[in-house]
Amino acid sequence: MKAAPHRAKLYEQVAERLSDAIVAGTLRPGERLPSVRELSTRERVSVSTVLQAYLQLESLGIIETRPQSGHYVRHRERLLPAEPQVSRPASTACAVSVSSLVARLYRAVSDSRVVPLGAASVAPELLPVQRLNRELALMAREEGALGVEYDMPPGCPELRRQIARRALEWGGALGPDAFITTCGASEAVHLSLLAVARTGDTIAIESPAYYGTLQSIESLGLKALEIPSHPRYGLELDALQAVLDKRRVAAVLLVPSFSNPLGSCMPEEHRKHLVSLLAERDLPLIEDDLYGDLFFGPERPRPCKAFDTEGRVLLCGSFSKTLAPGYRVGWLAPGRYRERVELLKFAQTVATPTLPQLAIARFLQNDGYDRHLRGLRRRLAAQMDQMRQAIAEHFPAGTCVTRPTGGSLLWVEMPRTVDALALHARALEAGISIAPGPIFSAQPQRYSHFIRLNCGNPWSPRIEAAVATLGSLARSLA
Amino acid sequence: MKAAPHRAKLYEQVAERLSDAIVAGTLRPGERLPSVRELSTRERVSVSTVLQAYLQLESLGIIETRPQSGHYVRHRERLLPAEPQVSRPASTACAVSVSSLVARLYRAVSDSRVVPLGAASVAPELLPVQRLNRELALMAREEGALGVEYDMPPGCPELRRQIARRALEWGGALGPDAFITTCGASEAVHLSLLAVARTGDTIAIESPAYYGTLQSIESLGLKALEIPSHPRYGLELDALQAVLDKRRVAAVLLVPSFSNPLGSCMPEEHRKHLVSLLAERDLPLIEDDLYGDLFFGPERPRPCKAFDTEGRVLLCGSFSKTLAPGYRVGWLAPGRYRERVELLKFAQTVATPTLPQLAIARFLQNDGYDRHLRGLRRRLAAQMDQMRQAIAEHFPAGTCVTRPTGGSLLWVEMPRTVDALALHARALEAGISIAPGPIFSAQPQRYSHFIRLNCGNPWSPRIEAAVATLGSLARSLA
Repeated sequence: MKAAPHRAKLYEQVAERLSDAIVAGTLRPGERLPSVRELSTRERVSVSTVLQAYLQLESLGIIETRPQSGHYVRHRERLLPAEPQVSRPASTACAVSVSSLVARLYRAVSDSRVVPLGAASVAPELLPVQRLNRELALMAREEGALGVEYDMPPGCPELRRQIARRALEWGGALGPDAFITTCGASEAVHLSLLAVARTGDTIAIESPAYYGTLQSIESLGLKALEIPSHPRYGLELDALQAVLDKRRVAAVLLVPSFSNPLGSCMPEEHRKHLVSLLAERDLPLIEDDLYGDLFFGPERPRPCKAFDTEGRVLLCGSFSKTLAPGYRVGWLAPGRYRERVELLKFAQTVATPTLPQLAIARFLQNDGYDRHLRGLRRRLAAQMDQMRQAIAEHFPAGTCVTRPTGGSLLWVEMPRTVDALALHARALEAGISIAPGPIFSAQPQRYSHFIRLNCGNPWSPRIEAAVATLGSLARSLA
Repeated sequence: MKAAPHRAKLYEQVAERLSDAIVAGTLRPGERLPSVRELSTRERVSVSTVLQAYLQLESLGIIETRPQSGHYVRHRERLLPAEPQVSRPASTACAVSVSSLVARLYRAVSDSRVVPLGAASVAPELLPVQRLNRELALMAREEGALGVEYDMPPGCPELRRQIARRALEWGGALGPDAFITTCGASEAVHLSLLAVARTGDTIAIESPAYYGTLQSIESLGLKALEIPSHPRYGLELDALQAVLDKRRVAAVLLVPSFSNPLGSCMPEEHRKHLVSLLAERDLPLIEDDLYGDLFFGPERPRPCKAFDTEGRVLLCGSFSKTLAPGYRVGWLAPGRYRERVELLKFAQTVATPTLPQLAIARFLQNDGYDRHLRGLRRRLAAQMDQMRQAIAEHFPAGTCVTRPTGGSLLWVEMPRTVDALALHARALEAGISIAPGPIFSAQPQRYSHFIRLNCGNPWSPRIEAAVATLGSLARSLA
C-alpha cells in the first residue's frame, strides 16, 4: 500500500491558488479580492466553498475582511517568511535523554517576571476560569460531601457523557463508557504508552516532537524513532511505511492536529491511510488530540480515531488548552486497551480529582463552551499572525517560520549559525523564556538552530519588545 | 550487623503487663484497674507513663474510662481473638499479576448498595469535607484566576510549607523545598518506583502488601520479593538482611506505620536499624506513610525518614485518608532523588490540581486539622474494636485477627479450608464487598484463607449484620 498524496479539499485548493497569487505579487497588499459571487462563478465552485477559502486565508493572516466592503490582501511589512523544510531525522531508534535540558527550560516558566514565550500555554485572561471557578464554588457549597470519595476509574459519568456528546460532532461513535478521565492529556499519553509498550520497545513519533512526550518515553525506558515530518501536513507516511517495513515498532504516537512544536495538521486522507497502514500491521496508534479544538479554519479536523473500526487508536484529550490547565482534567478513549488502561490508571493515581471534573461537566452542559472556543480560536489566530510578522521583522534574514492552521505555537528555523541553546540562555538573562529546538528531539544536536515560540498571550508592547530583543540576540549570534 | 529485637518503650511495657494480666484472667472484665497514682508508685514510673499506657490500652479496646470513676477492664463477649502468625512468603522474586483479581474487587466498590468492607476508605461523614469544600468555594470565588495556571512541580508553595510545618512535629528537618506535591500517595509511590528502579529490577516489600502497590510494581515490569512480616511489628529485619546478603534488590518499599493490610507498626528501633542497614548497602527506601497520622496510641510514630541523614528515604504521604480522597492531593519528600522525581512528575501528570492543593493548605493553617484528627482516631479505634468483636462472635472458631494500633484495617485469618475468593464471591451476592487475601501477594495461592476488612465506617446495624452474614458464609465454606 502506497501513501496517498494529500488531496486538498475544494476550498483548500481555492485558498491555495489565491495565496500563491499573493505570494507571487499578482495580488498586492491592500488590493481588493474578487467578491464571493464573482469568485464562485470564476472558479465554478459554490458560494460556501469560497467563503470557507476566505475564512482560511483570513485565519492564516493573509487577507482581512473590511465590514461592508469585502476582502483585501493584508498590508504587512514584508511577505510571510518562508516555511521550514520537511524534517530529516536519522532513521535509528534512540534512547531518550532530554530531561536535564528540559529542567533548565521549565524552571524559568513559573517566574512571572519572565516574558512567557517558552511554555505552550494559553494566557489566563483568554480562558473562562472565573466562570468555571464559580461552577466549582457552587457545587462545593451546594452538594455537601461532593469530592470526598474516590471517583474510581473510568471517572465522573457526567463528564464522560459530555465528552461523548462532543465527540459526536466529529463523528466519533463513542459512548460515555468509551472514555476514562485522567489528570490531563499527559497522564492519558503516559498510560497509553504503559498499556501498549514494554521497556526497550520502540515508539515511532513525529520529528520534532513535544518534549513532555519524549520525557514520558524516556521515563519508561522506551526508545524513540523519529519520522520525517512536513511543516504543514505532519508525519510523512511514506517514511513511516519504510520504517515499519524494516523494524519492529510497538506503537506510533502522534499529534495529528496542530502538533507541538510544528503546528502541522495531517490531512484527512493521510489519517485514513495511516489507520489502515497500522491495521495491516496490527499496531496501535496513540493519538494526542490536545489541540484539536483550536482549529482556525472552517472545520474541526476529525481525529484518526474517527476512521478506526478496530479499537486500535488510543485517543487522548484534555481541557488544559481550552479551559483550565490547573484543573488537570483530561481523558482517554483507549479502544481495545480499555481494561488494561483502567487498571494502570488505578495503580498510577487511583482516580482523577472529583470536583474539577464535575465543574467542567457542568460548564459543558450549556453552550458557553462553543462560544468561548470560537472567540479563543479567533484570538489565537490573530496573535499567531502578529507573532509571525514580528519575527519576520526582527529575526535574521533567512529565518523560516511555520504556518499552522490551529493551536498556539510557531516553530522558527534560524540561520544554521544561531545556536538555540545560546539564544535560550541570553534570552533568559534578558527576562524572556523560549523553548530551544534540541529539547524536541531524542537525537543530540538536532534542531540546534530552531526555537518554539508560544502565541498564547494577547499581543502587547511587552511581547512585541521581547520578540525584537530575541531577534537582535539571534542576529548577534548569527 | 544483627537486627535488634524490639525494645518496648516504658509505657508499652506497662501496657503489655496489664494486657497480659487481663488475657490471663488475673484482671476480669468489669474490674477496676489501679488508679494512675497507685500504678505509678507500684511500677516506679511517672504518672504520665501510666497515662500513656492506659491510653494505649483504651485505644486497643482492652480497657475503658468511666468519667469521675477510673479505668475498667472492658466487658466483651469473649477474649480478643488470637493474632495471625508472622507471614512466611517464598523467598523468590516474582513477576506480579494481581490485576485481573483486583479488577474483580474494585468494580463492586463504587456501588452504594454494597456494604463497603472491601476498600480501605474512611466514611465521608467522618471527614471534614463540607468545611474543606467551603474553603475551596471561597478561594474559587475570591481570587479570580486561581486554578487556571499549571502549578508546576514541585507544586503549591503554601501547601508545601504546611506539610513541612507538620513534619516538624515528628522531627522532620525538611523545609518546604524538600517536598513535591502529587496526585495522592499512589502517584508518589509510583514516581518513587520509576525514580529508583528499572524494568526487571526487584523490589523488596512486606508480605502481605497493598494490592495497589503490587499493581504499580506490575505495571512497571518490576519484580516483587516478599519479606516475612510480623502482624504487630511489620517487616522482619533479619529476613530482609538475609535476602539483601544474597541478591540484588533495587529498593525496599514499606508502609512502616499501620501497613495495609496487616496494620503493623514497625518499632522505632527497627526503623533506625532499617535505615542503617540500607545505608550500608547504599539502597533507597520508599516509605509510604499514608496512615501515619491515624495512630491510636499516645504518639505519632516517627517515619524512617526521621533517621535518614543521607536522603535515601523517599517519603510518601497524602490527605486521602484524613481529609478528602477525591481531592487527590498527596506529597513526596524524595531526598536525593528530587531532581529526577520532579521531571518524572512533569512527564506523568505535568502538575497537581491547583485549587484542591490551595484549599487543603488553607485548611491546615488553622488548628482544625489536629482537632479533626483527634476525633477521627478515636472513632477509628472504636470502630475497629467493634469490628474485631463482631468477627470474634460470628466467624468460625480458629479465626485470627490482627491488633493494629492505627489505621482502619483488620487482617483476618480464617481456618485453612475457607477459600477467600469463594467467600468474596458469595459475599458480593449478599451485597457485601470484602478484600480477599490473594490480591495482597505476588505469589499465587498465598493468603488464600485471609481477608481484609475495612473499619472506616461508623458502626451500625447494617455493618453488624454484614459481619454476621460474612461469618456464617465463612462457616458454611469451612
